[in-house]
Amino acid sequence: MHEHDVVGIGNAIVDIIGRCDDAFLARHGYAKGSMQLVDAAAAAKLYDVMGPAVEISGGSGANTIVGVASFGGRAGFIGKTADDQFGRIFGHDIRTAGVTFTTPAAVKGSEPTGRCLVLVTPDGQRTMHTFLGVSPQLGRGEVDPALVASARIVYLEGYLFDRPEAKAAFRQAAGIAAPAGRQVALSLSDAFCVDRHREEFLNFIRASVDILFANEAEITSLYQTNSFEDAARKAQTDTRLAALTRSEKGSVILTADQWITVPADPVAKVVDTTGAGDLYAAGFLFGLARGRDLETAGRLGSLAAAEVISYLGARPATKLSDLAQAKGLFT
Amino acid sequence: MHEHDVVGIGNAIVDIIGRCDDAFLARHGYAKGSMQLVDAAAAAKLYDVMGPAVEISGGSGANTIVGVASFGGRAGFIGKTADDQFGRIFGHDIRTAGVTFTTPAAVKGSEPTGRCLVLVTPDGQRTMHTFLGVSPQLGRGEVDPALVASARIVYLEGYLFDRPEAKAAFRQAAGIAAPAGRQVALSLSDAFCVDRHREEFLNFIRASVDILFANEAEITSLYQTNSFEDAARKAQTDTRLAALTRSEKGSVILTADQWITVPADPVAKVVDTTGAGDLYAAGFLFGLARGRDLETAGRLGSLAAAEVISYLGARPATKLSDLAQAKGLFT
Repeated sequence: MHEHDVVGIGNAIVDIIGRCDDAFLARHGYAKGSMQLVDAAAAAKLYDVMGPAVEISGGSGANTIVGVASFGGRAGFIGKTADDQFGRIFGHDIRTAGVTFTTPAAVKGSEPTGRCLVLVTPDGQRTMHTFLGVSPQLGRGEVDPALVASARIVYLEGYLFDRPEAKAAFRQAAGIAAPAGRQVALSLSDAFCVDRHREEFLNFIRASVDILFANEAEITSLYQTNSFEDAARKAQTDTRLAALTRSEKGSVILTADQWITVPADPVAKVVDTTGAGDLYAAGFLFGLARGRDLETAGRLGSLAAAEVISYLGARPATKLSDLAQAKGLFT
Repeated sequence: MHEHDVVGIGNAIVDIIGRCDDAFLARHGYAKGSMQLVDAAAAAKLYDVMGPAVEISGGSGANTIVGVASFGGRAGFIGKTADDQFGRIFGHDIRTAGVTFTTPAAVKGSEPTGRCLVLVTPDGQRTMHTFLGVSPQLGRGEVDPALVASARIVYLEGYLFDRPEAKAAFRQAAGIAAPAGRQVALSLSDAFCVDRHREEFLNFIRASVDILFANEAEITSLYQTNSFEDAARKAQTDTRLAALTRSEKGSVILTADQWITVPADPVAKVVDTTGAGDLYAAGFLFGLARGRDLETAGRLGSLAAAEVISYLGARPATKLSDLAQAKGLFT
């Protein structure tokens, strides 16, 4: 198998994105900005009451991987779809983005392909309800060892910790990457997800993670502190490299002895923040895989994050390699 | 049944919208700006080669009707979906837009819900390939006479002329509207569609149509002339009221003795022209149904068209009533 820059493992999700006002969130008791797991019935009930929507392929890790490909990186993805319309949409969109995606769809009669109901408020914030469907049934047997071993960096989506089968696939991938001399990257995904699996995350990070991605809420949840600085210093001791994102305050890149601050890129109008963290990771991982210095990698992350929040959906609509070239970040 | 401003009959379609460059169109021999009917196999083949896409409910007449609802009009739609994912998407999006939509979905095992593969080039032009699926199987029995009779204006999508069963439903609706003292509006939909059914269109317009919508290509195709002025004068004799759209040149509204020119609204950046004509019709019909003068109706059309071409997809993403209020067109 030819070499990949980054191979990701995550939930295969189609986003169903609709607009709502703050009153709608309040009426239904939804916490703005959160991601909540729901079952099929709850997802159907919410869909019935939310407004007109658009369907765009999503999934946190998949968004990152498509971002890497949009930068011109060689990228692969491992994730589970069903043999249904959303599965075909997910597979089409990721393959035609240039990503290696060979995970077989589940046979007919399985749970459906996962979906995420995304409610976007006028301030551009997103509130998510995810029905994972067949996605967590990604078994050990479906992690293609050759694909994982072909990647300079293996990228794992923290959301997979929510289901035991997926977690096993996750650990398997990390187990293949390390002996092959590959790097393992992990995104914490969501503060509530961190809260559900804090000890497991900490153990996994200390034992197996080379590159850690988290936003402010996630890293402070991981270390149960109110201080970002405090959490960041703890991350410095637990992992070789961490990239911590802070929305409009930009990001902080940490190694044992470095603390690099990277500003956020300006955005004319924030339309939909969905995918900001995912696309930051895309730029950062692409930069790393291609041997860029940490600050440049962070700036590629800022560029990709600013791009994706300027329209609806979490997949890049413009070639990120063109944007990076225009900014002089491709040399 | 309570009174409706406008009830539309048309194809129930989900748009699959992807971006491509002019070279892609040339390589596949696609005529930019056209709508071509394709079968399931051809649609699947094109889908395989087109890039990542987003799915947004569409259908020319349905877009118009959702536009009427977005202006605050009471609107209804009649169109055929299948019992599948795209059918659920279409039904959800039109109902939650506030439109009365009660046409039952076809039973399991039918043709699938119709879809339109929309290729958007960097200049914002769209080129469409439509697989109608179950949509033309809208039978006479599915045109709810009470719903049709409840509408001040019945709006018919010209594309329905492409299939005999749908055409019968179409004639049936016109037959209900006239004796009930309702107005019948028709959109010519597409120059190639006009070319396929010229005589039938002319006979139908002369016998049954009160309000005719066409763009420059369609009206000149109908009258087989190269001169817009010539075609427009012929339309004046064939129909009581015509609204002819001319892209950035705005529109011309014609009665037997009036020729009203309405400018197009300025657009900062044309992202995707899909739905421009559909949304012009929405504003115009809403204005008429609410007793506005012809020029104001035309300006509501210009406003809605300018809005929808500033983003991807053919459904309004902003409440058109708010935009109209901001412009002082709601008094």
